Amino acid sequence: MNYDLCLHIDSKEPAILKLVLMNAANYIKALPGERFQLVVVANGPSAVQFHKSNEEFRAIAAPLQEQGLRIAICANALANSNMTRDDIWPGCDVVPAGLVEIVRLQREGFAYIKP
Amino acid sequence: MNYDLCLHIDSKEPAILKLVLMNAANYIKALPGERFQLVVVANGPSAVQFHKSNEEFRAIAAPLQEQGLRIAICANALANSNMTRDDIWPGCDVVPAGLVEIVRLQREGFAYIKP
Amino acid sequence: MNYDLCLHIDSKEPAILKLVLMNAANYIKALPGERFQLVVVANGPSAVQFHKSNEEFRAIAAPLQEQGLRIAICANALANSNMTRDDIWPGCDVVPAGLVEIVRLQREGFAYIKP
Repeated sequence: MNYDLCLHIDSKEPAILKLVLMNAANYIKALPGERFQLVVVANGPSAVQFHKSNEEFRAIAAPLQEQGLRIAICANALANSNMTRDDIWPGCDVVPAGLVEIVRLQREGFAYIKP
Repeated sequence: MNYDLCLHIDSKEPAILKLVLMNAANYIKALPGERFQLVVVANGPSAVQFHKSNEEFRAIAAPLQEQGLRIAICANALANSNMTRDDIWPGCDVVPAGLVEIVRLQREGFAYIKP
Repeated sequence: MNYDLCLHIDSKEPAILKLVLMNAANYIKALPGERFQLVVVANGPSAVQFHKSNEEFRAIAAPLQEQGLRIAICANALANSNMTRDDIWPGCDVVPAGLVEIVRLQREGFAYIKP
């Protein structure tokens, strides 16, 4: 089966980011030996949570990124939060428009889940 | 690529409607020259936000509607909010059941995003 | 048309469970004579709401389950809430990982809606 999955976050609530990262961890753990792509697309007010200064969540995300989790952050959202790509966690991608990225992933066959 | 997109709202929080309309605006702006359908389906407690008296958001939505944004509001949700189709913003559609509309759009190839 | 639908819940807010169950009821009511599968997948903090002691919502769900609604609860979420399958409403399924279940349903052609 194709397990490619896009998780979407747009909330600035830490509890939601915690849930997204726990979702990602459980997803990886549930599929040992499977090959799949797992992407978190972050837009809207959620962008601020990916600031380098948010070390607590960065420490949770880092081992997931090492296991293949891709994090893609919306450039519009960064601009609205007065952030640049230099402000975000290392290893995150910046995409021009978060919604276009999510639609593109759905077209490529990714399932979509909004935690 | 097929950029048809359904945005779903069911919250009565103004911040969520603001996010949905900003999403719609950014989506349109990100795809100059592309042809696509963009629909907001509103159901549940969100219906009250589309009341004519909500002029602040109506003013944000109007230019997006002129650029092709369709807004479809669930008739069940209107009834639960003691509203009729005469109470909502001009140019909005009423659909019998919001969830059935969303499923129909997904079957027609629309991507689904819940801001 | 294929009306198979997966509703996703991960919030512990009673208002969200109320909305999900109202969504399910309206969906069934909107499609008389149609054959379709309707599944609520519950994960994350939502699991506690399906505890047997939550009799108010259990009473709302029971007639929907009799009309074919399937409720699938994530085993990870139960464990995180210190619950076992003996603690939940009768007639609910437990699935090993809620997200994998949602992806599987999307692959099988279910539409996805997050109330």
